[in-house]
Amino acid sequence: MLKVESIHYGIVIDHITQGKGKKIFDKLNLGEADFPVVLLRNVTSSKYGKKDIIKIENCIDVDMTILGLIDPNVTINIVENETITKKMKVEIPEEVHGLFKCKNPRCISNAEDNISPLFKLVKVNGTVEYSCEYCEEHTSYML
Amino acid sequence: MLKVESIHYGIVIDHITQGKGKKIFDKLNLGEADFPVVLLRNVTSSKYGKKDIIKIENCIDVDMTILGLIDPNVTINIVENETITKKMKVEIPEEVHGLFKCKNPRCISNAEDNISPLFKLVKVNGTVEYSCEYCEEHTSYML
Repeated sequence: MLKVESIHYGIVIDHITQGKGKKIFDKLNLGEADFPVVLLRNVTSSKYGKKDIIKIENCIDVDMTILGLIDPNVTINIVENETITKKMKVEIPEEVHGLFKCKNPRCISNAEDNISPLFKLVKVNGTVEYSCEYCEEHTSYML
Repeated sequence: MLKVESIHYGIVIDHITQGKGKKIFDKLNLGEADFPVVLLRNVTSSKYGKKDIIKIENCIDVDMTILGLIDPNVTINIVENETITKKMKVEIPEEVHGLFKCKNPRCISNAEDNISPLFKLVKVNGTVEYSCEYCEEHTSYML
């Protein structure tokens, strides 16, 4: 059984859907971090059977939009003095700015360098789709 | 302080040079593993100041050539029943088959699909270089 002892000050991203921990780790650039970080994959969870966990021994800004897009099931725990002082749920973001491209190759956001893609959530029905604010094309995000 | 409790049966790749843990994790395809694995980055080491560690709760074949190329400082611990039963050092491999390409674009190993690159270690002097068995060009490996 693999367990990681409590961290002193920092952030625990818990209840990550099994298999998504590595993607979150990469998207948050934790592979380049110079502070202690741990990625646990496929650990036993009483709630989900198996899960992934990320522990970060530092106070950093975690991009909640990225987390919500990759895995809206995660819980963020803020740890101070080895005690969880705050728990947060993430949500599928209503608006996404610049994290993926519009799938319409003729969309102005793909043609012009100074126009950043902007999407609004349009459907949560098994798949998550976003409507482009420029051309209204629907895109299933690919993070 | 981040610590991971002992594993029951499996492998611990210890004393990884700080910053190389993610590369080893990726090259051993542990991001796709379906058994418990842990990547610890930038943890405190009495010997090296900071180090990375990988813990694998499973008995898998670990490619010692890949480890020796990326980081010849690592130690492999085999764990059975929560006890380290074997310790192994890795070495810079004398021969490497197929893990990187010859840098000579006209080398036959780059031109023919059925010829796999093969290298012999020629120099350990700050940098590691390999001599191609086909064209004798020296290549500093890029894993």
